[in-house]
Amino acid sequence: MNLRNLTKYRKACPFLGNNTTKQLSTLSRTTSNGFTSNLTTKAQSCPIMGPAMQQQKKHYASVASKKDVDAIHAKEGVKKSSGGVCPHAAAGIAAAKAAAAAANAPIPQSSSSSAAASTSNSSLFNYQEFYAQQLQKKHDDASYRYFNNINRLAQKFPVAHTSRPDEEVTVWCSNDYLGMGKNEIVIDTMKKTLDKYGAGAGGTRNIAGNGQLHLSLEAELASLHRKEAALVFSSCYVANDATLSTLGSKLPGCVIFSDSQNHASMIQGIRHSGAAKEIWKHNDLNDLEARLRKYPKETPKIIAFESVYSMCGSVGPIREICQLAQKYGAITFNDEVHAVGMYGPTGAGVAEHLDFQQHSKTPDTVSGSVMDQVDIITGTLGKAYGVVGGYIAGSADFIDMVRSYAPGFIFTTSIPPAIAAGAQASIAYQKAYRGDRIKQQINSRALKNKLREVDIPVVPGPSHIVPVLVGDAALAKQASDSLLVDHGVYMQALNFPTVAVGEERLRITPTPGHSAEAMQHLVASLDEVWKKLDIPRESDWIKKGGRAGVGQPELVDADPLWTDSQLGLLGENHHLPDIFNHDIEQAKQIATERLQDLLESSADEDIVRIINGSE
Amino acid sequence: MNLRNLTKYRKACPFLGNNTTKQLSTLSRTTSNGFTSNLTTKAQSCPIMGPAMQQQKKHYASVASKKDVDAIHAKEGVKKSSGGVCPHAAAGIAAAKAAAAAANAPIPQSSSSSAAASTSNSSLFNYQEFYAQQLQKKHDDASYRYFNNINRLAQKFPVAHTSRPDEEVTVWCSNDYLGMGKNEIVIDTMKKTLDKYGAGAGGTRNIAGNGQLHLSLEAELASLHRKEAALVFSSCYVANDATLSTLGSKLPGCVIFSDSQNHASMIQGIRHSGAAKEIWKHNDLNDLEARLRKYPKETPKIIAFESVYSMCGSVGPIREICQLAQKYGAITFNDEVHAVGMYGPTGAGVAEHLDFQQHSKTPDTVSGSVMDQVDIITGTLGKAYGVVGGYIAGSADFIDMVRSYAPGFIFTTSIPPAIAAGAQASIAYQKAYRGDRIKQQINSRALKNKLREVDIPVVPGPSHIVPVLVGDAALAKQASDSLLVDHGVYMQALNFPTVAVGEERLRITPTPGHSAEAMQHLVASLDEVWKKLDIPRESDWIKKGGRAGVGQPELVDADPLWTDSQLGLLGENHHLPDIFNHDIEQAKQIATERLQDLLESSADEDIVRIINGSE
Repeated sequence: MNLRNLTKYRKACPFLGNNTTKQLSTLSRTTSNGFTSNLTTKAQSCPIMGPAMQQQKKHYASVASKKDVDAIHAKEGVKKSSGGVCPHAAAGIAAAKAAAAAANAPIPQSSSSSAAASTSNSSLFNYQEFYAQQLQKKHDDASYRYFNNINRLAQKFPVAHTSRPDEEVTVWCSNDYLGMGKNEIVIDTMKKTLDKYGAGAGGTRNIAGNGQLHLSLEAELASLHRKEAALVFSSCYVANDATLSTLGSKLPGCVIFSDSQNHASMIQGIRHSGAAKEIWKHNDLNDLEARLRKYPKETPKIIAFESVYSMCGSVGPIREICQLAQKYGAITFNDEVHAVGMYGPTGAGVAEHLDFQQHSKTPDTVSGSVMDQVDIITGTLGKAYGVVGGYIAGSADFIDMVRSYAPGFIFTTSIPPAIAAGAQASIAYQKAYRGDRIKQQINSRALKNKLREVDIPVVPGPSHIVPVLVGDAALAKQASDSLLVDHGVYMQALNFPTVAVGEERLRITPTPGHSAEAMQHLVASLDEVWKKLDIPRESDWIKKGGRAGVGQPELVDADPLWTDSQLGLLGENHHLPDIFNHDIEQAKQIATERLQDLLESSADEDIVRIINGSE
Repeated sequence: MNLRNLTKYRKACPFLGNNTTKQLSTLSRTTSNGFTSNLTTKAQSCPIMGPAMQQQKKHYASVASKKDVDAIHAKEGVKKSSGGVCPHAAAGIAAAKAAAAAANAPIPQSSSSSAAASTSNSSLFNYQEFYAQQLQKKHDDASYRYFNNINRLAQKFPVAHTSRPDEEVTVWCSNDYLGMGKNEIVIDTMKKTLDKYGAGAGGTRNIAGNGQLHLSLEAELASLHRKEAALVFSSCYVANDATLSTLGSKLPGCVIFSDSQNHASMIQGIRHSGAAKEIWKHNDLNDLEARLRKYPKETPKIIAFESVYSMCGSVGPIREICQLAQKYGAITFNDEVHAVGMYGPTGAGVAEHLDFQQHSKTPDTVSGSVMDQVDIITGTLGKAYGVVGGYIAGSADFIDMVRSYAPGFIFTTSIPPAIAAGAQASIAYQKAYRGDRIKQQINSRALKNKLREVDIPVVPGPSHIVPVLVGDAALAKQASDSLLVDHGVYMQALNFPTVAVGEERLRITPTPGHSAEAMQHLVASLDEVWKKLDIPRESDWIKKGGRAGVGQPELVDADPLWTDSQLGLLGENHHLPDIFNHDIEQAKQIATERLQDLLESSADEDIVRIINGSE
């Protein structure tokens, strides 16, 4: 980095201005990574220089836009100089430009012998130009994604810091729905596992990467969903893709019936299977049946659907789909990704929730429940369970077939032991303790009510998701940016292709960790942003005839899945046995004990215990 | 679990025999998971009952076979009763059967309303029968995989325990090539990150799951490979699949030239892209060129290949492939999965290794190196780096295009902060310290020599992989089983479809952690197993005209990639600057410092430091 240019501006810069010239000089001459100077590394954390350098290096932006940088900077100026005007903006930007130009220098310009950089030979395909064109398309239709830099703090859940460690925002859009990512039992279990079994699995499941913790997690998952077996994947994207593509390609003449709102992973799996497909209208049983009826009974059929649709918060009619499956000889593939840990007496998902009382009792008394009727359940360990990874559960032979044939399972390193153990502790805890998901539901309900009170348009739905309609891509992005910069509230704007054009929205996911004050701040912030950007209110949508379920009287707001009684809001006594509803301390103990034998005993102790006959 | 049947046999059983009837009774009445009794849970860890119950429950086996169970059991009998005969085998097996039958009871038999369990309606497709048939096929052609239960112990690397915590074996087939999975800096970094940022990322990269640690890891990877940018995926399977399918489907009229030995993930990516493909003979530049020549220069072309081919240990001719790419207007896609961390002065892989001296100097003096010519490098964080995850590195616009278009990247939860941080610490450490990969190479060379001394057939190759030819599927499996049960040596047999029929093998991966004694034991064990099972020796293959490179004089054994000089075996002085070759303590410090700012400063401290002007 060019020191002269930097020192010239440093006095104007609150970030580097306090360093002596000697300090700057030392920083510029030392390196920790052998590639960029410590000054460059330091500069990357500056709110002005960082983004500018990112831009210059053609790294994709980690801060929304130039406008945001200015906004952050202006705000910083206000705070630091208490003058209301930013005294060092121009100088700072000039310094940033100099720094960026200098920082850029050591990045190698590949003197490529390959065609990639070759522009001299006009007959060759110009790959770089093609990439740039593809990106321009994304910019043109405003679907280019800027990733916000969000670092969720375990000790301050649901608060995160941005690219600056001292700038904190409240996260309102994470899928760590229950805060299990910061749960002490989960983290302790993972740390113990790291100490005992190390960082990675070291191989595929077939070669050195299959341990007791993987088997134990799969047994836990099978038990959770009352299936014979389960199988864990790197992610539920991979689980869905691998399972549907394997099943769809193996079953002779298979037809896959896919809900029109299904997740990208299922769409990919269906595409990769090469099987015939029928896309039925979202949650429309009549359309599904009409399509099922077209095929002979003996034709293998898979009905693929979700329980909670993440972007709109709607819920699939699982019971009725199972009935149609029986009638037409289909199997059911139910993605419970946004529902596991969140619904049901043991957190097994919506299918379990539909027979709440039955599943609250001793497992062997359950009979004919919806969950038992579903053939294949897929879920994630990375949302309500707070860790990472995905899985499928079903009959033993089905699982064994996927295990034996799916390349996406076979040819990949298995999940680290610490991930497996942390996920199992999380599942065991949520199985035993219902408090988190109850508090989450109560928070979701409260937020929906508060938003309606101030005429903010909530897309109606029976689940924990709180989608707020904006109805315009640019406005949604501006609303998200303004919430972050002006109000310290983080929620991502959801635009096409994630949602339909005209149905752009913010998607709020309250957790049990969001306080009443945080919620009040959120509602006031939304109200202010709605005012500032003149975004349509619920009453406006009613006048316009409604959109995306908002202000559409013909679409009745479904009753919440969690009833008042299940949430304990009625104060009634439950007379039925409820063997899973422990208090939080018991749940901690159960989750800890689940893995204790493996994590806390050393081999030597085991031998001693066996020799001594103490077990 | 039926207590009467168990107590009847317990005296004969060394595993439960020491429990009083009361203890057994308590175990049978209590549950930790609300589903199976503690006795059942305990029984699952018994070397006889565990597998029997697994079998019975139709769980896929975690121990190789009934035969192995008997072998383990017999061995146990020998050890425990010192009688040489197994006094309790029959009784034990009867107890196991009773336990298994009892344990089976609480598993729900889904009274499925769907077609899956329906056999009464003969016109419906029988899914369960179909699954069973598919599995039978695997059994019939001996390609059914039994997963061994291997739990690698961080404190005893490379030792693992089996399903019994007190039964230890030496792992000789892990892809944790350098033991980074147990590296203290990696584990400490992960633990600190867990404490600060929690267990999971909580969202996709676009929604709440993009933090400083992800960006920092990607910057580290870009710098490692001297590319403008990098992108991290759940695994390199996903990275390869997503990248090739996105690129192949986007580039107009693209043709992909794929080495015949390419990994399954690349094959899937190519298939999913829908692009035209040309499969060229493994490492055959003439065949590659003949195929390239068939297409116009302006046709977009991707040459996809690996640097180290994992199953045979051969190495791709990267330099020459880049030359062909330039000549025919193609881009190069180089999978360095088995090479990153292992080759090159900074561990960037074989491409870097080819210009070892140049890359040992200050980065900005490098010019025209092979690595700089490769357009796309893909790698893993789960093998030599010891953690999990995969990545691609390349030009900024290329990376941004994949980031913007690949569903397998977009629609999945990002890797946990602790995984990102652990991986970065590992890369930084290996970048600074060359000792591990040098010791690994020396061990690989030594093992190859020792095996040849006792006439064990090593498939020749210039890499760190030591494939040992068996040449028969059943024999390979028996050899692997016997090594495990009789010698405490774990290495998986590799059969079709992983390797060609007739080229079945054991694949040995020595690490820097394998001692001379462990290697001596391995060689003696292999020699004994070869004798016992009458497996062909190298001299036998020579007589037969050779196979898979063994005993084929026309296939010259390539010189090892790491030269004697690079390994420091010549004792010469290096006169060229070598700025990355630190000692182990410096490397630890560099790796720790790389993430220190983010992991060890609290926001409050930052503010204080800024206010106090101390930075």
